[in-house]
Amino acid sequence: MASVRIREANEGDCGDILRLIRELAEYEKLSDQVKISEEALRADGFGENPFYHCVVAEIPPAHGEPQGARVVGYGLYYFIYSTWKGRNVYLEDIYVMPEYRGQGIGSKIIKKVAEVALDKGCSQFRLAVLDWNKRAMDLYKALGAQDLTEAEGWHSFRFEGDTMRELARK
Amino acid sequence: MASVRIREANEGDCGDILRLIRELAEYEKLSDQVKISEEALRADGFGENPFYHCVVAEIPPAHGEPQGARVVGYGLYYFIYSTWKGRNVYLEDIYVMPEYRGQGIGSKIIKKVAEVALDKGCSQFRLAVLDWNKRAMDLYKALGAQDLTEAEGWHSFRFEGDTMRELARK
Repeated sequence: MASVRIREANEGDCGDILRLIRELAEYEKLSDQVKISEEALRADGFGENPFYHCVVAEIPPAHGEPQGARVVGYGLYYFIYSTWKGRNVYLEDIYVMPEYRGQGIGSKIIKKVAEVALDKGCSQFRLAVLDWNKRAMDLYKALGAQDLTEAEGWHSFRFEGDTMRELARK
Repeated sequence: MASVRIREANEGDCGDILRLIRELAEYEKLSDQVKISEEALRADGFGENPFYHCVVAEIPPAHGEPQGARVVGYGLYYFIYSTWKGRNVYLEDIYVMPEYRGQGIGSKIIKKVAEVALDKGCSQFRLAVLDWNKRAMDLYKALGAQDLTEAEGWHSFRFEGDTMRELARK
């Protein structure tokens, strides 16, 4: 089993992050929704007031391999706010390439984000998961997460671009 | 019908905002979860890098009334990030006092947040609602929102404080 290193992403990782974002969307059967570009990822994550933060999982090259370390997973998060509990962290995406699953890389990404959250004074760690993704649901529950949609009945709503523009203008 | 004014909140509104946060939690039957203080609201919303933004709905005093304008509703939001669409806005709380409902104040709060979202280059506007809160669900749907839990099966998960600390330390 290759050793994995979880580290903060830098601007040079945006190409890899975009590759993995697309793989994740394909896995979620929602890849037609991906409109983001590498340029947007650079601008929004690595400017003065970043809109998101990211950690990557990296496998060092095998002995004698000419290519460098390989980015095989990522966790993209940002800070949100609960009017009940104050500062929270939200893990927007977490993904590990299929051939690297079953080695605890996902749990390591979650652990790293939990460390950052504690460091920033957050009291909760939230994320969303698709109901048919049993593997992910089981992992989060095993790690101690609660399904709030099941327990309290929370539904996620969204106004898309055109609807939002109409709302603002009427 | 009293005329209502939707405006950005300032630090002096934190007492009113906390009063309304508590009313909303009571309405949601989850008031035991409210741990926030007025001091935290001041520090987290009105410092240099605010964790949230807020608009309030204000009713001007009736002619001859000695007291000032009354804050009767609020919308608390922040910016989040979609790896599919980029910058988004998230409306964490929206609340209007029961005696002021049915006058379109909720829609006006949503409109104001949509304006800010457009101004900041956001492509989506998200929020969450409890499944038994039919009045709110119907309003959001009438305004054009999509229920993503229903349509795509998204479930909201949360790691609470102690679980998060364990995650970070193991």
